[in-house]
Amino acid sequence: MTEKPLNAETPVAHLQSWITSNAIFFKRNQEQIMATPVDLESWRLLIQGQVEKTIELSFADILAIPKIEVANTLECSGNGRSLLGEKASGNPWTIGGVGNAIWGGVRLGDVLKKAGITSAARHVGFEGLDNPLVASTVKFIRSIPLEKAMDSTILAYEMNGEPLPLEHGFPLRALALGWTGANCVKWLSKITILEQPATGYFMDKVYRVFQKGEDPASGQVVTTIPLKTIITSPENGATLARDTVMVRGAAYGGEADVAKVEVSVDDGKTWRPAEFTGPHERYAWRRWEYKWQVTTAGEYKILARATDDRQQVQPMSADWNVLGYGNNGIREHAVSVTIQ
Amino acid sequence: MTEKPLNAETPVAHLQSWITSNAIFFKRNQEQIMATPVDLESWRLLIQGQVEKTIELSFADILAIPKIEVANTLECSGNGRSLLGEKASGNPWTIGGVGNAIWGGVRLGDVLKKAGITSAARHVGFEGLDNPLVASTVKFIRSIPLEKAMDSTILAYEMNGEPLPLEHGFPLRALALGWTGANCVKWLSKITILEQPATGYFMDKVYRVFQKGEDPASGQVVTTIPLKTIITSPENGATLARDTVMVRGAAYGGEADVAKVEVSVDDGKTWRPAEFTGPHERYAWRRWEYKWQVTTAGEYKILARATDDRQQVQPMSADWNVLGYGNNGIREHAVSVTIQ
Repeated sequence: MTEKPLNAETPVAHLQSWITSNAIFFKRNQEQIMATPVDLESWRLLIQGQVEKTIELSFADILAIPKIEVANTLECSGNGRSLLGEKASGNPWTIGGVGNAIWGGVRLGDVLKKAGITSAARHVGFEGLDNPLVASTVKFIRSIPLEKAMDSTILAYEMNGEPLPLEHGFPLRALALGWTGANCVKWLSKITILEQPATGYFMDKVYRVFQKGEDPASGQVVTTIPLKTIITSPENGATLARDTVMVRGAAYGGEADVAKVEVSVDDGKTWRPAEFTGPHERYAWRRWEYKWQVTTAGEYKILARATDDRQQVQPMSADWNVLGYGNNGIREHAVSVTIQ
Repeated sequence: MTEKPLNAETPVAHLQSWITSNAIFFKRNQEQIMATPVDLESWRLLIQGQVEKTIELSFADILAIPKIEVANTLECSGNGRSLLGEKASGNPWTIGGVGNAIWGGVRLGDVLKKAGITSAARHVGFEGLDNPLVASTVKFIRSIPLEKAMDSTILAYEMNGEPLPLEHGFPLRALALGWTGANCVKWLSKITILEQPATGYFMDKVYRVFQKGEDPASGQVVTTIPLKTIITSPENGATLARDTVMVRGAAYGGEADVAKVEVSVDDGKTWRPAEFTGPHERYAWRRWEYKWQVTTAGEYKILARATDDRQQVQPMSADWNVLGYGNNGIREHAVSVTIQ
């Protein structure tokens, strides 16, 4: 965890439920966040660029737009980075840079309709109210393709039944459903409709998948959350004095729908299906459980893998890249069982 | 609101989301609640009565049982009581004695399997750790039929991703899905399998629907939450200086699935369909929204009604009963529109 800027994983002990409560939802920031929330009365959202008219919306204007509430699992682009076989640059996330919440807000398409977009529009750029670091003038500006913006992106002002907390972007954040956190700009203040993707440090140098010696800007932009599952209990490294072990976790696949989770306790030779144990909503993770009857005490590695509804299977290990994004490799979960 | 025992509605301003956050979820208690949470290490759940063997389960035993997470709307049996045309006895609830949460726990059937129920078993009695009032020795004991217990009742230890809060029954409460709060005993400590329904004050004198002069014990027991909708915005009595009004609310029907919500602004002469705006999970309310284009300034009454998937329609007014239970009549929502 870092304090300035605020970066904190959710401890695995708090990743046991379908809903991740606001207080312990992971936080990932590039800059120090503002000390006090913005004043709702004076806050405005500017919409400019390739639009028929530049407009400014007040918070009351946002509330007057049709509302949508959606369950969406949000993951940091670098979640799982520290578990890669070879070290990669960036925050050393293990598995807790992910959480699931019910987000309330408006469809971005409904918002853009108010400004009217021109036929030249291809991308939607987002800028928030983050204060740039004193030593830096690099703003956190990100853009997403127009198609994603119109199809499945919301601007959220509620999180799990509460106003969006300050650390999560009060009063409004972008939420490209199923995409990583980097695509979901917080403290949103400005939307610019673009002909080309936005440029700058956070578009061209990071949040791209590239190899050593390659130009970052040539790498693919990190978008959808890859298909994977985490094991949330028992804890990695645990010693278990029982012969029945409830293995539990959460599986998610960004824009893909998780169809199956399997568990192996024999190094991947055989796989057994887990049961789903919670709600099933598009864009939200699915909680699962596997009842493991242990016949012989010993050291085991628990593996779990997810399959989506197009029969894509999570890989044993993810392709390495310089900045360690998209690690959806299967994590070996070592436990020691001492049957009573 | 009363402090001792703690009874508090959720303010309508906090009833705007599909999830009702734990901090503001309504509270209804018969007795003062304990000052400090029970110690998890020493807590036990006793299962006795018509069982093959009397057992005591620890909290670790509960955690080792297959888990289920379910969205469930919980309503106080007396919610809406104060809105009845004729005064009824009891706490003067308006519309805020209801909320929706994701509950994590175990199926009651899985728990009872551990004790084994006899062929004489017909009802399941619940007793919690509430301290009886000093002046009273009347314990809050409730029972539900075995069929409901085995089919769709859980024992919950999590609420919206957090351990069940003290005020909501830490560490474990019964949750008869789709049934009113009275059927969902908190601080659960004892389950008794019965041949007949439990008896006593909270079974025979209250939580029954009866008329003046009738024996309470002859009235029907309050079970499923009746089909209804609440309007959560605009607020009742509001003055609105705009010609487009977003009418929003939540509709629920206990064990029934809400299929349609309609809104009328002409005293019920015509009804227009509302749009659903949030997740759709069995046992959970459905959020809805109706965009009302006002053409003439004036005084209006907004009405909303729910229809379930068996074409049952919420009544204009509910049948009165002495204790004011199950008020699912349509509430007239008066607003004044002063078009700008």
